Amino acid sequence: MTARPANAHQARLLRMLRDEGPNSRAQLGDQIELSRSKLAVEVDRLLQTGLIVADGLAASRGGRRSHNLRLAPNLRFLGIDIGATSVDVAVTNAELEVLGHLNQPMDVREGPVAVFEHVLAMAAKLRSSGLVEGFDGAGIGVPGPVRFPEGVPVAPPIMPGWDGFPVREALSQELGCPVMVDNDVNLMAMGEQHAGVARTAADFLCVKIGTGIGCGIVVGGEVYRGATGSAGDIGHIQAVPDGRACACGNRGCLEAHFSGAALARDAMDAASQGLSAELASRLETHGTLSAVDIAAAAAAGDTVSLDLIREGGTRTGQVIAGLVSFFNPSLVVIGGGVTGLGHTLLAAIRTQVYRQSLPLATGNLPIVLGELGQNAGVIGGARLISDHLFSPA
Amino acid sequence: MTARPANAHQARLLRMLRDEGPNSRAQLGDQIELSRSKLAVEVDRLLQTGLIVADGLAASRGGRRSHNLRLAPNLRFLGIDIGATSVDVAVTNAELEVLGHLNQPMDVREGPVAVFEHVLAMAAKLRSSGLVEGFDGAGIGVPGPVRFPEGVPVAPPIMPGWDGFPVREALSQELGCPVMVDNDVNLMAMGEQHAGVARTAADFLCVKIGTGIGCGIVVGGEVYRGATGSAGDIGHIQAVPDGRACACGNRGCLEAHFSGAALARDAMDAASQGLSAELASRLETHGTLSAVDIAAAAAAGDTVSLDLIREGGTRTGQVIAGLVSFFNPSLVVIGGGVTGLGHTLLAAIRTQVYRQSLPLATGNLPIVLGELGQNAGVIGGARLISDHLFSPA
Repeated sequence: MTARPANAHQARLLRMLRDEGPNSRAQLGDQIELSRSKLAVEVDRLLQTGLIVADGLAASRGGRRSHNLRLAPNLRFLGIDIGATSVDVAVTNAELEVLGHLNQPMDVREGPVAVFEHVLAMAAKLRSSGLVEGFDGAGIGVPGPVRFPEGVPVAPPIMPGWDGFPVREALSQELGCPVMVDNDVNLMAMGEQHAGVARTAADFLCVKIGTGIGCGIVVGGEVYRGATGSAGDIGHIQAVPDGRACACGNRGCLEAHFSGAALARDAMDAASQGLSAELASRLETHGTLSAVDIAAAAAAGDTVSLDLIREGGTRTGQVIAGLVSFFNPSLVVIGGGVTGLGHTLLAAIRTQVYRQSLPLATGNLPIVLGELGQNAGVIGGARLISDHLFSPA
Repeated sequence: MTARPANAHQARLLRMLRDEGPNSRAQLGDQIELSRSKLAVEVDRLLQTGLIVADGLAASRGGRRSHNLRLAPNLRFLGIDIGATSVDVAVTNAELEVLGHLNQPMDVREGPVAVFEHVLAMAAKLRSSGLVEGFDGAGIGVPGPVRFPEGVPVAPPIMPGWDGFPVREALSQELGCPVMVDNDVNLMAMGEQHAGVARTAADFLCVKIGTGIGCGIVVGGEVYRGATGSAGDIGHIQAVPDGRACACGNRGCLEAHFSGAALARDAMDAASQGLSAELASRLETHGTLSAVDIAAAAAAGDTVSLDLIREGGTRTGQVIAGLVSFFNPSLVVIGGGVTGLGHTLLAAIRTQVYRQSLPLATGNLPIVLGELGQNAGVIGGARLISDHLFSPA
């Protein structure tokens, strides 16, 4: 795909076809508020570029039946979601439906060169599956702050070796298509907005609790990235005055008290101190513990695990309560690996937010788990690159 | 003024003339990216409405000299800033320059009817000064959350009697012109953005510390109000776990530990406990203490007052630190009555934010006092109503 829309009307038509699927000229005309003749001009130009195709006749609305239009069926986007300990790569069509999805364990600390070898091998595998001839664009998320205009990670705490690495440029050369780079949390927010629980929300927060903890901020339907791309970096908001030492040099940061990493550490401490037979036995079997073990132990009734989840939810809820008072969102989505802890976690977060935020801000505020799981990030990646390609060049 | 711009181009021309002053057709054409002929059409229509007037010849750029254009010189906006204990009313021209400004002590708890009597009397006084024939619109700020589309205060904690009162409608009838209503903190942010320290900032926070404490949030140059109009309500973010009881029913809210009201209470406690001779003597003279007394006592070297200011600044800084990590603003403005405490307060806030927020978010972050003092709110009010009137009807 080399063509891009020539103007804002064309861009809007492309995004409508992406978000709402194939549609008739008549319906598109109603929605876009263009005169019939102007719409015809823009549609014809898009048909010439090959970005959209005619797709049979639409249902009659009385009078002449109008043609259905859809995005080119051979368009393919790549969504890449790099986590701290695994990577997801998926290919979507132009409507951002996932056609193939691979996941692989990986350590982001291996650095960009090693990680990109994995990613390119996974992309090649998806390509060889026959679903894809080539990629028209790729959107990639990394677990740290990104200088968005350049697509470069900047001072990412859990990604040594990535600071300043030209991710966008390097990956674009390797893949031979346009690439956009963003924070993994922003990708999750975009995914849940496109196809998940936030479909109808304009102003919402998406809190991702994985190895670390971060927050995607959406204002008026657009991701808000802040002055230097670090907006939503809530892992180092103080949750406990004079609390635990954090890797950032401060004390009491939320991430030091609750995150996938903190939870694993707490669980291993409890196991080795003999506080939980359930956790001790799992530690012996696996040699280590993760959120998955704690979720399983909690499900089996282990009170130490339940307490760890509740306390973590309360800490997280304290921080979210402040953000809710400040930002007054219409929705809070909780996502990330730790959501396997499920409703025990959610209940603790909700209790704290509803208790501590002002009633005016929480009156109609749903706090819910994300719907898309591991698909959120890759769909968000496809959305990111399609937003770029479906805007005037 | 009954005319409104007919389309987005005309609206943009009006706002450019408001924000940048009189300009030549040629310069406007360069900035607005309209063809010469299309610009001429829109300018002619605006001249016909009387919203703009021709104003002499512009300096030559070679070739034919172009006419200067400016907003109608007889346009008058009213900015009204209702505080907890005083009210400001000012009249501006179309460029939002203050032509007359009145301030009067007043208790917002008297309720809307009594307060509006003051406001209308002040407006009449400004009118009788000869500066004004009539008002073309008014923007009003109230110290509590507002349902913005309807212009109605909603559950304002320090304004009993205002809940659900149709401020916009009532004042519009009395004044005989369009009225817009917003939170006082949002008005301060708009004022500092139009004519103060935030002129070049797109994403910034404006923290107002008066009787209470609140925060104006500007995203991409526009005030962000949140899902239900309560965004920026930071006075009830928890600053001290298990801290002081707050009027809202929780403990440890920022406002319970630092605000004009909390500071006055602390100072009176210190005076009556004999901890500060300076404060005790002022209490005896005035019968009460306010931020002004504490500022004066601190300037005279009173260590109790200095400690109160520093501790309040630290508490405020703790909360702002979290907001800076979350929102990654390009600027933080501190305003409101308590800014009379000056650089002692600012230093305490800065210390805490720079210590506690992530370096990536604070790297280039100025934290400064507002520039406009009591003018910020009234200029913000004029800006609010002009934004409304200078948008397509």
